[in-house]
Amino acid sequence: MHAKTSVGLSPDFTEDKLWLNGKEVSVHQPRVAVCLSELRKLAQQKKSGGEIVQWRMHICSENNFPTAAGLASSAAGYSCLVFTIAHALGLDSSQVSHIARQGSGSACRSMFGGFVRWRALPSELEGKQSGESEELRRKQSEASNAEQVISEAYWGSMRVIILVVNDQAKSTSSTDGMQRTTLTSTLYTHRVHNVVPERCERMETALKEKDFATFAQLTMRDSNQFHACCLDTYPPIVYMNDTSHAVVRFVHDFNTMAGDTKVR
Amino acid sequence: MHAKTSVGLSPDFTEDKLWLNGKEVSVHQPRVAVCLSELRKLAQQKKSGGEIVQWRMHICSENNFPTAAGLASSAAGYSCLVFTIAHALGLDSSQVSHIARQGSGSACRSMFGGFVRWRALPSELEGKQSGESEELRRKQSEASNAEQVISEAYWGSMRVIILVVNDQAKSTSSTDGMQRTTLTSTLYTHRVHNVVPERCERMETALKEKDFATFAQLTMRDSNQFHACCLDTYPPIVYMNDTSHAVVRFVHDFNTMAGDTKVR
Repeated sequence: MHAKTSVGLSPDFTEDKLWLNGKEVSVHQPRVAVCLSELRKLAQQKKSGGEIVQWRMHICSENNFPTAAGLASSAAGYSCLVFTIAHALGLDSSQVSHIARQGSGSACRSMFGGFVRWRALPSELEGKQSGESEELRRKQSEASNAEQVISEAYWGSMRVIILVVNDQAKSTSSTDGMQRTTLTSTLYTHRVHNVVPERCERMETALKEKDFATFAQLTMRDSNQFHACCLDTYPPIVYMNDTSHAVVRFVHDFNTMAGDTKVR
Repeated sequence: MHAKTSVGLSPDFTEDKLWLNGKEVSVHQPRVAVCLSELRKLAQQKKSGGEIVQWRMHICSENNFPTAAGLASSAAGYSCLVFTIAHALGLDSSQVSHIARQGSGSACRSMFGGFVRWRALPSELEGKQSGESEELRRKQSEASNAEQVISEAYWGSMRVIILVVNDQAKSTSSTDGMQRTTLTSTLYTHRVHNVVPERCERMETALKEKDFATFAQLTMRDSNQFHACCLDTYPPIVYMNDTSHAVVRFVHDFNTMAGDTKVR
């Protein structure tokens, strides 16, 4: 599974163009447009890239993730797009994760390898919906930045296995779902304020210490609690199916048999 | 679906006997034994029933609920058993719901028709597991009593439809499940203290005012939140399956189409 972006810039191009999986799509859709304009603005501020910042670009984006199936396909696509264009414009890719976030909320997390921590918004910016104003959206994006906790090389024996139990598009998109959860779930607010901050600290420690048992149990419990908040949303959002739950039971049975947390 | 209990008392019987669905089972299993001894003790205190309190009894209990399938089969069985024996011993059945509770936690709720409110334990008794000591168990049972909110005649047009999506026994029993949830779910404590009390008041008002839209939405949201806490338990407990969720989606689609909350 991968996302690939190629970008060409030329003084001869008359307009920006974008091809997604071989099919031309509009560069004027808001999420793409804001990424391009923010990247050019930043390159001008930093005086990087020289005259090519003025040139039009042709972007070719390829992505073989199943779309909207819970595998962060748009995060992969936008982070790859922003990373590639940043390089082309001579920008440091570690400084543009807040721009990727404007393409897809979780794209900022996908800008780095290994394990990445995505900082929560400070309280004065939280609870407001993105898009209320461009100014607010920009402030939220800059504040909600991501940083690498450990690199992919640090814990080289770590493997992630993806079992596809359903590759159809989710009936509720991540963005719509999170907004409905924020508005209607009485458990979600408790989770955000009273559970997640402490778990993040424990997770960061577990990663740095390569403590697999703690890492695995935190991952399982936090995944369950996320899905619990989806179910507490009104109307409820259900991303797991009978097969997903059968896999979960198998993992617990396997760990019980092994007498140890062998798998997540 | 029904539970039926017949009881015969005679000075000629030499021992208590119990038949469950035609098969003789021990009256010495702890949950049955405690119900019988508590009922006899109460009858002696109240001086009801006269000499028959000393007589041995033969109990015949029939129950055509699917067992352990989420339909409160043991609550139905124990409430019927306690109700019947209370009558035989000349006791007022409204005063014995705390005894039924010792047979099955939720049996106290099944002692009455219509809609019943089951009061939470006062804080000094809560959080302790039943069965730690007989004394504590008795105190918990007496404190956690049930009372009828409205009778079955008050809202005569109300119908409950049961769709059986799986009549196999649950993989986790209600009692074990609730104990594991209490111990491991960080969302459950929040639910108990910050969500349920206010919802109970609104539900009682909705029932008295026959406000179906409020009744239905509270029922849906509270059911979802209960299942969310099951999922937040470690290891997770999952009572709903894909068919259950398909029914939930159908109900929301139906209500959306009708432009009103027609069904729960």
